[in-house]
Amino acid sequence: MIRVGIVGATGYAGAEIAGLLLGHPQAEVVFYGSKSYAGQKFSAVYGNFRNLIEEKYDICREPDLPEMAKECDVIFTATPQGYLSGLLTPEILENTKVIDLSADYRLKDIEVYKQWYKGIERNDDPALLSEAVYGLCEINREDIQNARLVANPGCFTTCSILTAYPLVAEGLIDPDTLIIDAKSGTSGAGRGAKLPNLFCEVNESVKPYGVTTHRHTPEIEEQLGYAKRHCGGDGSPILINFTPHLIPMQRGILATEYASLRKVTLPTGKTVLPDESMIREAYEKYYSEEKFIRLLPAGVWPETRWVEGSNFTDIGFAVDPRTKRVVMAGALDNLVKGAAGQAVQNMNILFALPEYLGLEKAPLFP
Amino acid sequence: MIRVGIVGATGYAGAEIAGLLLGHPQAEVVFYGSKSYAGQKFSAVYGNFRNLIEEKYDICREPDLPEMAKECDVIFTATPQGYLSGLLTPEILENTKVIDLSADYRLKDIEVYKQWYKGIERNDDPALLSEAVYGLCEINREDIQNARLVANPGCFTTCSILTAYPLVAEGLIDPDTLIIDAKSGTSGAGRGAKLPNLFCEVNESVKPYGVTTHRHTPEIEEQLGYAKRHCGGDGSPILINFTPHLIPMQRGILATEYASLRKVTLPTGKTVLPDESMIREAYEKYYSEEKFIRLLPAGVWPETRWVEGSNFTDIGFAVDPRTKRVVMAGALDNLVKGAAGQAVQNMNILFALPEYLGLEKAPLFP
Amino acid sequence: MIRVGIVGATGYAGAEIAGLLLGHPQAEVVFYGSKSYAGQKFSAVYGNFRNLIEEKYDICREPDLPEMAKECDVIFTATPQGYLSGLLTPEILENTKVIDLSADYRLKDIEVYKQWYKGIERNDDPALLSEAVYGLCEINREDIQNARLVANPGCFTTCSILTAYPLVAEGLIDPDTLIIDAKSGTSGAGRGAKLPNLFCEVNESVKPYGVTTHRHTPEIEEQLGYAKRHCGGDGSPILINFTPHLIPMQRGILATEYASLRKVTLPTGKTVLPDESMIREAYEKYYSEEKFIRLLPAGVWPETRWVEGSNFTDIGFAVDPRTKRVVMAGALDNLVKGAAGQAVQNMNILFALPEYLGLEKAPLFP
Amino acid sequence: MIRVGIVGATGYAGAEIAGLLLGHPQAEVVFYGSKSYAGQKFSAVYGNFRNLIEEKYDICREPDLPEMAKECDVIFTATPQGYLSGLLTPEILENTKVIDLSADYRLKDIEVYKQWYKGIERNDDPALLSEAVYGLCEINREDIQNARLVANPGCFTTCSILTAYPLVAEGLIDPDTLIIDAKSGTSGAGRGAKLPNLFCEVNESVKPYGVTTHRHTPEIEEQLGYAKRHCGGDGSPILINFTPHLIPMQRGILATEYASLRKVTLPTGKTVLPDESMIREAYEKYYSEEKFIRLLPAGVWPETRWVEGSNFTDIGFAVDPRTKRVVMAGALDNLVKGAAGQAVQNMNILFALPEYLGLEKAPLFP
Repeated sequence: MIRVGIVGATGYAGAEIAGLLLGHPQAEVVFYGSKSYAGQKFSAVYGNFRNLIEEKYDICREPDLPEMAKECDVIFTATPQGYLSGLLTPEILENTKVIDLSADYRLKDIEVYKQWYKGIERNDDPALLSEAVYGLCEINREDIQNARLVANPGCFTTCSILTAYPLVAEGLIDPDTLIIDAKSGTSGAGRGAKLPNLFCEVNESVKPYGVTTHRHTPEIEEQLGYAKRHCGGDGSPILINFTPHLIPMQRGILATEYASLRKVTLPTGKTVLPDESMIREAYEKYYSEEKFIRLLPAGVWPETRWVEGSNFTDIGFAVDPRTKRVVMAGALDNLVKGAAGQAVQNMNILFALPEYLGLEKAPLFP
Repeated sequence: MIRVGIVGATGYAGAEIAGLLLGHPQAEVVFYGSKSYAGQKFSAVYGNFRNLIEEKYDICREPDLPEMAKECDVIFTATPQGYLSGLLTPEILENTKVIDLSADYRLKDIEVYKQWYKGIERNDDPALLSEAVYGLCEINREDIQNARLVANPGCFTTCSILTAYPLVAEGLIDPDTLIIDAKSGTSGAGRGAKLPNLFCEVNESVKPYGVTTHRHTPEIEEQLGYAKRHCGGDGSPILINFTPHLIPMQRGILATEYASLRKVTLPTGKTVLPDESMIREAYEKYYSEEKFIRLLPAGVWPETRWVEGSNFTDIGFAVDPRTKRVVMAGALDNLVKGAAGQAVQNMNILFALPEYLGLEKAPLFP
Repeated sequence: MIRVGIVGATGYAGAEIAGLLLGHPQAEVVFYGSKSYAGQKFSAVYGNFRNLIEEKYDICREPDLPEMAKECDVIFTATPQGYLSGLLTPEILENTKVIDLSADYRLKDIEVYKQWYKGIERNDDPALLSEAVYGLCEINREDIQNARLVANPGCFTTCSILTAYPLVAEGLIDPDTLIIDAKSGTSGAGRGAKLPNLFCEVNESVKPYGVTTHRHTPEIEEQLGYAKRHCGGDGSPILINFTPHLIPMQRGILATEYASLRKVTLPTGKTVLPDESMIREAYEKYYSEEKFIRLLPAGVWPETRWVEGSNFTDIGFAVDPRTKRVVMAGALDNLVKGAAGQAVQNMNILFALPEYLGLEKAPLFP
Repeated sequence: MIRVGIVGATGYAGAEIAGLLLGHPQAEVVFYGSKSYAGQKFSAVYGNFRNLIEEKYDICREPDLPEMAKECDVIFTATPQGYLSGLLTPEILENTKVIDLSADYRLKDIEVYKQWYKGIERNDDPALLSEAVYGLCEINREDIQNARLVANPGCFTTCSILTAYPLVAEGLIDPDTLIIDAKSGTSGAGRGAKLPNLFCEVNESVKPYGVTTHRHTPEIEEQLGYAKRHCGGDGSPILINFTPHLIPMQRGILATEYASLRKVTLPTGKTVLPDESMIREAYEKYYSEEKFIRLLPAGVWPETRWVEGSNFTDIGFAVDPRTKRVVMAGALDNLVKGAAGQAVQNMNILFALPEYLGLEKAPLFP
């Protein structure tokens, strides 16, 4: 049994990890770390867990990384930016594995981090930054297997990258024309008591935010830059517009993505714009064996309701011959594949378990 | 492996059965019966099931009870009132077990049925009516074990009865003072394309309906009447007010119940009104061993979010010394414990399996 | 032009007053009092007001009652409990009129206040308490006309009292059997940044709260007690159960009320239970001339969507001959008739204007 | 008093016209046309209108255009595609004015209509098509003044065009790079009893639809093509991607738009990319006098909650120097400025009234 600790267990992502692991046959949460609720029963803070947690573990404890490292085989940190990098040491990583749901170890480039995370300090320890593996399972599976420190991707990021990756990798689109318009449920904003997240402020409204400045932008740009290596690129970041929107629902992210098609040379020497079947082939090349990615048939588009509560990413697309663009859309549950589910998937990879353990729940509808 | 057929598989309750059984280790849906969608892939109608159903079963078929009876070990009928009783025969029950989610076999008293279900024909075959067992698992477990035909209770009914049962059974309240004010999510209204269930009609509104005439009333009155037998009563129906309300959410029922306390005689001969501890004791007597009923501590009240997606019923209460009443509240997921979950629980009882198989999902929050 | 000041202008109720007065031909807000936002443009805090407020008034100012009393003909205080009574003086009332949306002057009985508002100090100045008029317009219109200090009723209270008043006043129900089960949208909880009011906590859930202890209870009990005077009663408080529920919508309150019918003596000397027409007659006696109360025809029930954004209270009822009870339901918009609208109605009465000025907006649907 | 008839009065847009005109000092609905509800009281179908409509008019009548033309000074047709063009004659237009909320007279180009509205017949009478004026008030005000037949724009269209118009007209963006990602509340789908619009299907989900094929696309392309004339263009249609999304709210449209900046030549002869102040200047040139368009300050973005229930369009933008694009966003209430409000605005223009009559309601929040 893998002994699991969670720092930030009483946030939405932390609690989602706890919920998923209730159904995991080989892992058990033994440490519910929570500063704000230390001393209280976890199942009193999250009433859905009532009667479901073994009495001896059902208590929120003041998080203490070195202590947890001794007690736990793996620690999930669902914490504010800067927290983990301020505390993590090589010693801790000798005792335990760490899967970080914050942005501390996602961006390799220190300058890029500084530019986008203005005023949010992180400890830029080069050794740890270099050691950290970006935990986008379907793309980086092999590197994750041997990691000690996993930087779990952001929710917008996971959805945005997975939706465009094969087309960038195969050179079917011009990556610098990529425009990502994303819509997110409100749980992505966390459980903090903030006025903009009140029911009456969110309900019956939609708004863009972080336009041209959202921090998930460089993460997408860096990772899709790597994708270019598949088709002879140098791996340098691409340049995109990314606009998130808040919509009145709890879970779910939908990313609608637009890019200009790039002419490709056929074996015959002729150059043509990719058509639907070439696009589909590219998706299938990367995802046909992926349990958690469902490529939708032509004419069917992702809807967040079909993935809610599950670790799936649904992807659909259409070629627009009028504008010579492809329109793609991806949908996932921001708390599962966009956070806790992918974190558990990363844990499974780290411990050489089947990737789907604890993640087999069918999406819940309605 | 238990071979399962569902009639009405593309309704919300039918699809919920299908979803729960995906996680059941000893049962498998082999027949997705659906008149409206016959010939279509089930996973195309319910996109959440995409990739999750074995290819050969993933097709909606025209339901045919006698045929299904041969193919299936158990049939769930999630069908309109009158459907099952118009088709069911003893021969069918010799070949299979039937768990009916409609009201056809719930009310034993033919006159009561006629009075409340005006204009909705059912076949009042006395033998089948008498054979049918009311499938409220926690109350009728023993009778269910040997049944062939289970009348699965309604969603309001399950919640309303479970919340009041111990207090009626122990004689702590005057049952004829019982007033039940229930609030339901919209999935209870089914998947029919009806104007009152449109998003814009339901959202941002709350309304009572079926006031003094809702059909779940006599079901509650009959079953709580039986409860009186525990304390020397004759089992005749009680007389209540039941008012359902539609509220803008998908899943969940909350029943708030009010009743006047009844004086009880202490061993000392003194007569007193029951206090909180006596009420709690009554609940514990009936429910302390029940896996799917969670009695909440004093001061904690049920909220539907804590049971969503699960088979739990949460129950809380307070004694009001000012008015000499007890206020009780119960919450459950109308599609799970209020329909499909209880149906699966009944199936487990019928097949002598652990009751919780397929029903261990933790509630999903947020 | 009546010069209006609002203390607490950036709360939901305060802002609603401001919004209603935009459409009032004889009143104008000249002082937007707000501690939290002092110095900021009001129309930046509430973006719906952009371009709608005269430049010179469009600024949130630190509230200062004596100062405002000189500047304003009337002051609305939409403030926390205890605020107004801590500051109000006879001098202020010599300069201005005050309409208080808090509970400071609602309960006449000091002991009752202490019992229900434990730990929430108010200044129990007997002269001011005695001077204050309970501003339930349809009931207390005459007293309000000459008042200087109006205690604007609570939202639950307005709805609960108006729904039952005629039946209590006419002696058609036994008031001590009255049970009020109320459902409220979330704006009633105010604009404070509190975790329980976050979108993800409120949405897709329903919960009771303040069961047996909610502070609107004694307000209802006191006012319905006065109603008994119409039928020879002594005006002492009645004794009820009142249970509020939070539901996932922004605006709206629905109160479902249950009471046992009381036998009445006909002119013939015969005693009978009141039937539907007698109940209707009672409602019409009190409300047929009331512009803001809509008595619904038999079989039609109030729904909050039909009153949203308006000052209406819709009322419906049914007699249940089985249980000898009447079930009533009332619906209103908690921010309008339940707060700001009634406050403006009170202002109109105070200034001898037509009651409907500024309140003629039709309900907004969908 | 302008005598108004509405065909399709019981649809959401038709009822919204009726609601707005309740507050209009110079117009009155005298004919509530509704096929489905003919013979029923309008205020029984839309309970919000109870007590608000003069008795003699409060009845849904079978619509009959020639008859209505005699009775009414203006007719609003909120009807399915093809309805009006199948019935309209020059004789009718001699008796009355017609404001059509359907798409029958929006697209001038018959071939374009056929291509996008496949299978939806309209009568392509060239005289009427040529006479009809596209009723985008802020752009076509002068033409509307003298019209008899106004083609009221679609909801997505109004929002999309107004948001981009000044930048296209001033040549600040390359119009063929324009990508419009729109999010709409559910009332835009109408009041038909269709499964995809049920509460449980819409709530807690977001989905794109009509991707690359939505019928508002050519309307936007045609109208923004005209805009090019301001900067020397030929008025030929532009070519865009337009993707609508359904989100779980009732009212509101948000259009997020992306376009590449186009170099402009300064008086100095230097060519530069437009910066924020040049963009703002363009917006102000077109909109600074417009009562119903609110250009937001830098850093403030439109949110549909701030326009709900009003005739406003809020517009914000940001220049992204990294990608050399401008990101714009516009928000409006799809039933008001996106349908009924603009229709009333058009009526005011047709009758030479102040444009804002009946449209002065402040947005309702929360």
